[in-house]
Amino acid sequence: MTRQDGNTVRSERTRARILDESLRLFNEEGEDAVTTADIANSLGISPGNLYYHFRNKDQIIEELFAPFEARIDVPPPAPAGGGEAIEDLWLYLHLMLEAIWDYRFLYRNLDDLASRNRRLRERFNRIIDRKHATVVALCDSLVAARAMRARPGEIRALARNVLIVSTYWLNFQALRGHRDGGEEDIAAGAFQVMALVAPYLVGAARQHFDRLGQKYID
Amino acid sequence: MTRQDGNTVRSERTRARILDESLRLFNEEGEDAVTTADIANSLGISPGNLYYHFRNKDQIIEELFAPFEARIDVPPPAPAGGGEAIEDLWLYLHLMLEAIWDYRFLYRNLDDLASRNRRLRERFNRIIDRKHATVVALCDSLVAARAMRARPGEIRALARNVLIVSTYWLNFQALRGHRDGGEEDIAAGAFQVMALVAPYLVGAARQHFDRLGQKYID
Repeated sequence: MTRQDGNTVRSERTRARILDESLRLFNEEGEDAVTTADIANSLGISPGNLYYHFRNKDQIIEELFAPFEARIDVPPPAPAGGGEAIEDLWLYLHLMLEAIWDYRFLYRNLDDLASRNRRLRERFNRIIDRKHATVVALCDSLVAARAMRARPGEIRALARNVLIVSTYWLNFQALRGHRDGGEEDIAAGAFQVMALVAPYLVGAARQHFDRLGQKYID
Repeated sequence: MTRQDGNTVRSERTRARILDESLRLFNEEGEDAVTTADIANSLGISPGNLYYHFRNKDQIIEELFAPFEARIDVPPPAPAGGGEAIEDLWLYLHLMLEAIWDYRFLYRNLDDLASRNRRLRERFNRIIDRKHATVVALCDSLVAARAMRARPGEIRALARNVLIVSTYWLNFQALRGHRDGGEEDIAAGAFQVMALVAPYLVGAARQHFDRLGQKYID
């Protein structure tokens, strides 16, 4: 390895460490409470070294957005009917809420972040648009499989509510004093979103939901 | 009127003006972007005069919370069945969302405000507890009037979703780029919450919802 290669590797490693530590600090303390000086300090590097890699905090946030986008783009379940469709949907919601938890700093003060950074708001809205289309397509396939009974207008309103509840679930939990976000919080969130879909389910799908949801309902 | 009375009246007027102007600025610019100096400046009074009335910004926020609490405590509709129950419920949601709009600074950065001020978080949670109980009682009365078909566990999950969607509706609208919060935004929010309840409605209540909701569905 030449010296230049060594430097490049070291530099890339520093860059990756800055991103990892920023994510950790943003999530734990809230993005607005963390400065670039805090990040440098926490890594034991100089502010100058940090600025060599990132112009400012917003650039760090934007670079963290790419892996978040990859995580939140969970591939939707394949079309299925009956109980299988319900388990697939439940798992899908679970993975989505886990991704939100891992990048929860984006969801705290979301309004603030989005109004400060137009690019971020546009990227976030594109995610919401894609998710809306995914939920509508999933519902359409459940209707086609006779696992759901709902009109197109009902499905659109349902999809919007699915997005609102999943986007703000962790904020609501934090407000209510559940800030640990363990598996239990995420499972409760997936149930809460499933509860939006449940009244439209029919037949085996509905029965399967009732069985799976029993422990949350009681 | 004695001079002392005159001073007292003037002092109370200044206090009220500070609260009004703070609410306006917090709502328009976001609470975190507004300092006590901004408020004094906007009113053309000295910072010292403002500090004579309020120790700090958090005290202003807490004092604004009392009229907000009064506004959000919309009396729930009297038990009714059929179409009447639906119109009452719809009006109730409308008034609640209007109150949220008038004090929207509390809902932006809600997580931040609540984690900074424990007392405020507790008061906010008591509102949510009361609303949850109100929604459960409303659903129970709809079930008793045979306007709704839902089990107790379903009603609890539904009430939680009603609270999440109404709490975060304006944040979601702002994120999606609708920041005007006119009548249209509030009506759309009331529909979005009604859409949570709709699949549990039966008979005349359901038909009435379908008629009223037609313009949102299409």
